[in-house]
Amino acid sequence: MSKADIGLIGLAVMGQNLVLNMERNGYTVAVFNRTTARTLQFVHRNPDKRLVQAKTLEELVSSLQRPRIVMIMVQAGPAVDKVLDQLIPLLEPGDLILDNGNSHFQDTDRRSDYVRSRELEFMGIGVSGGEEGALWGPSIMPGGSRESYRQVAEIFGAISAKAPSDGIPCVDYMGPRGAGHYVKMVHNAIEYGDMQLIAECYDLMHRGLGMSNTDLADTFTLWNEGELDSFLIEITAQIFRATDAETSNSLVDVVLDTAAQKGTGKWASQDAFDIGAPIPTINAAVVGRIQSSQKKERVQAAQHLPGPKANRYDGDPDSLKEAIRQALYASKISAYAQGMSMLGLASREYEYELDLGRIASVWRAGCIIRAGFLEDITRAYTQNPNLTNLLLDPNIRDAVAVRLPAWRQVVATAVQWGIPVPGLSASLAYYDAYRSERLPANLIQAQRDLFGAHTYQRVDREGTFHSNWT
Amino acid sequence: MSKADIGLIGLAVMGQNLVLNMERNGYTVAVFNRTTARTLQFVHRNPDKRLVQAKTLEELVSSLQRPRIVMIMVQAGPAVDKVLDQLIPLLEPGDLILDNGNSHFQDTDRRSDYVRSRELEFMGIGVSGGEEGALWGPSIMPGGSRESYRQVAEIFGAISAKAPSDGIPCVDYMGPRGAGHYVKMVHNAIEYGDMQLIAECYDLMHRGLGMSNTDLADTFTLWNEGELDSFLIEITAQIFRATDAETSNSLVDVVLDTAAQKGTGKWASQDAFDIGAPIPTINAAVVGRIQSSQKKERVQAAQHLPGPKANRYDGDPDSLKEAIRQALYASKISAYAQGMSMLGLASREYEYELDLGRIASVWRAGCIIRAGFLEDITRAYTQNPNLTNLLLDPNIRDAVAVRLPAWRQVVATAVQWGIPVPGLSASLAYYDAYRSERLPANLIQAQRDLFGAHTYQRVDREGTFHSNWT
Repeated sequence: MSKADIGLIGLAVMGQNLVLNMERNGYTVAVFNRTTARTLQFVHRNPDKRLVQAKTLEELVSSLQRPRIVMIMVQAGPAVDKVLDQLIPLLEPGDLILDNGNSHFQDTDRRSDYVRSRELEFMGIGVSGGEEGALWGPSIMPGGSRESYRQVAEIFGAISAKAPSDGIPCVDYMGPRGAGHYVKMVHNAIEYGDMQLIAECYDLMHRGLGMSNTDLADTFTLWNEGELDSFLIEITAQIFRATDAETSNSLVDVVLDTAAQKGTGKWASQDAFDIGAPIPTINAAVVGRIQSSQKKERVQAAQHLPGPKANRYDGDPDSLKEAIRQALYASKISAYAQGMSMLGLASREYEYELDLGRIASVWRAGCIIRAGFLEDITRAYTQNPNLTNLLLDPNIRDAVAVRLPAWRQVVATAVQWGIPVPGLSASLAYYDAYRSERLPANLIQAQRDLFGAHTYQRVDREGTFHSNWT
Repeated sequence: MSKADIGLIGLAVMGQNLVLNMERNGYTVAVFNRTTARTLQFVHRNPDKRLVQAKTLEELVSSLQRPRIVMIMVQAGPAVDKVLDQLIPLLEPGDLILDNGNSHFQDTDRRSDYVRSRELEFMGIGVSGGEEGALWGPSIMPGGSRESYRQVAEIFGAISAKAPSDGIPCVDYMGPRGAGHYVKMVHNAIEYGDMQLIAECYDLMHRGLGMSNTDLADTFTLWNEGELDSFLIEITAQIFRATDAETSNSLVDVVLDTAAQKGTGKWASQDAFDIGAPIPTINAAVVGRIQSSQKKERVQAAQHLPGPKANRYDGDPDSLKEAIRQALYASKISAYAQGMSMLGLASREYEYELDLGRIASVWRAGCIIRAGFLEDITRAYTQNPNLTNLLLDPNIRDAVAVRLPAWRQVVATAVQWGIPVPGLSASLAYYDAYRSERLPANLIQAQRDLFGAHTYQRVDREGTFHSNWT
């Protein structure tokens, strides 16, 4: 039997689907799972496919063409280090290890140095698209050396999603070491932001305007045909049409309002604070999930804490609905501007050499945040690779400008209704702060200088100053 | 010469002032600084005082009564570890080391274990009050063993601030290991929140209502006589009265609007994400400082990004000013509720055994966030030590309830004006989310289950579920 093109370790659903995707694209894949039964089952359930089953890591390694490529698809964290420790002694100089899991970028930075010190190559690969994406074409964000990328470019090009507008594969070289996992982390953070913003609009239309789930399904379907065209809006429409088999109720109403998280949004918020990147919409989204998880406390608090007097909305509901649509789009632009700006700062901080246009291009299909809007972002950064902030692109700027009155109306209305819109508000506050030549932080500096002698800068000349304020 | 009661390492301003405070209260203090000249100068400039100068750590240690108490007051970070490594071999079992710097609580947890493994005692001491507080009476937050606390209770009781209402010293046992530094970190986080909220109100009254600095000084002076009575409001009034000696302009106008930070606010935000504590007002405050620091970008953006059409305010300015005062108070309550709730969660997470009433009591005087309002918080937790959230205390709840219309009006007006109020908005969104029995997170769970098979919980029975949504 001829040698396999690539090996994969870890046959959970994502791993299985990546294997089937590679095989469908003509590659022979050797597979290994810690529990051998799972390996045998998987190969058994997929007869007539170019799969090589390996019962040990030694078998896996010896079944591969040289230089070998081994893809690790196990749970992020210590499990990756464990696999590396077992795998490294079996490989030879020039062999390439890929970590396709959701590893923290700092772990990938560390592992890159470690694996390369053993004369092997290492890449951290961000993969987005969920189970379906893994099988039919994910968005792929590879980090490592350019030489390593050349080794995997063909196979990743084959298995990745293709952008609908130009058919370009949604994979490209991201940068050295943890760059791929960093980009994936920010992708997920933007995903958190998108989901929070959509949820707030749902709340406004449901609790505020009293719309039924059928109305909501129709509305999101319609929205998906316009500028909001995106995977998340599409599935939102689907969700409002789903029925619970047990109760025949609308399925979304049966779901508990307690959102979980796996941590990449949190990682992004934490790292943004470290590198000084303002991503308030994403912070609000993570906080939103946390507050949602305090269900018992909220049920209790709802009985004691008053809201506004029942506000019958006396305006035209359709006009407000249209304003909500515009506010969602403007808020989404703000959130993407925050995320892209964070990538720019991270690129300098961690020397990741990120190309923002290439990143936006890779997100155009396959991943969870895929959207028509990403064509606009790709164009913005392609036309001006030195764009300081997405909001400053002339087309984006104008797109926000025309939606400003609706955006402000929606946030103000929500505030009066007592419906929390932390994401919409944070997106707008980011925009208003960013366009403020002068913010009131001079007072904060004055306070810090007064009580802690922390000094301040002046508006009229260079230097550091301290005053006796009293 | 008789032995000294306590030794202090590190004679920067905070260290010097703590020494003078202890000496003034009757204690003999041995002092050491890495640069000997500074030690000699300090003792020389303070003749007739009970000071013992030490040119080496050996001299310092041999000048102390047993069991020895040595206070470290050096820059947080590696410098503390370096001093510990030099100091530990010179001490004997039962001696006590205090770290009075702004150390990260996790460093203090680690150092506690390390020092105790060497048969010595260790405490991490949070100290707030700036230079003036260190000299005349700070708020002190000690963490470590109860036995160690008994050794220092008298001296800390003597040098600490005293609450104006009952004369009780603003020091108390916080909990084991890093508990003191944790409480100090949350204190600083609340301080960030307070400062951001005050700055936003300044922006609304200055940019929005066009008030002069004299008007602002008078307004904050008046506010300080009511429910907002606090150190930060008091100094804000002073700041608006200060004149720049060079230009004769108002000093606050000469200060650049770029707020710096030393990191404790950021640490709190990062840890809050780790332990699942929602502190959106504090996050907004840290983001506010970050956005303020992007001055060059903002100046550029201000020329390109449109705001609302110049909105002349057509309501009564005095009535809006009063609404701003009420919104500030309600937002402040929300921020404190977030901080106190974070302390409760941290207490369980890190086994810190925190007593929220005792913490509020210690913050009543000496520290930067000292305020009349802390009497209300102390009372709330004393009356009900199991209070789930500060907002649920009947008095606090009613105090918020009457200010709700003003709070909503101010945030809505700011949004229409285009003046960013991320702190006021986040405080209100926290309140509105907390009192929401049902949030739209059911949609987020449905989305996650649809694209990632992440499963969801149901409203009508226990268990974990997955559906085919399409």
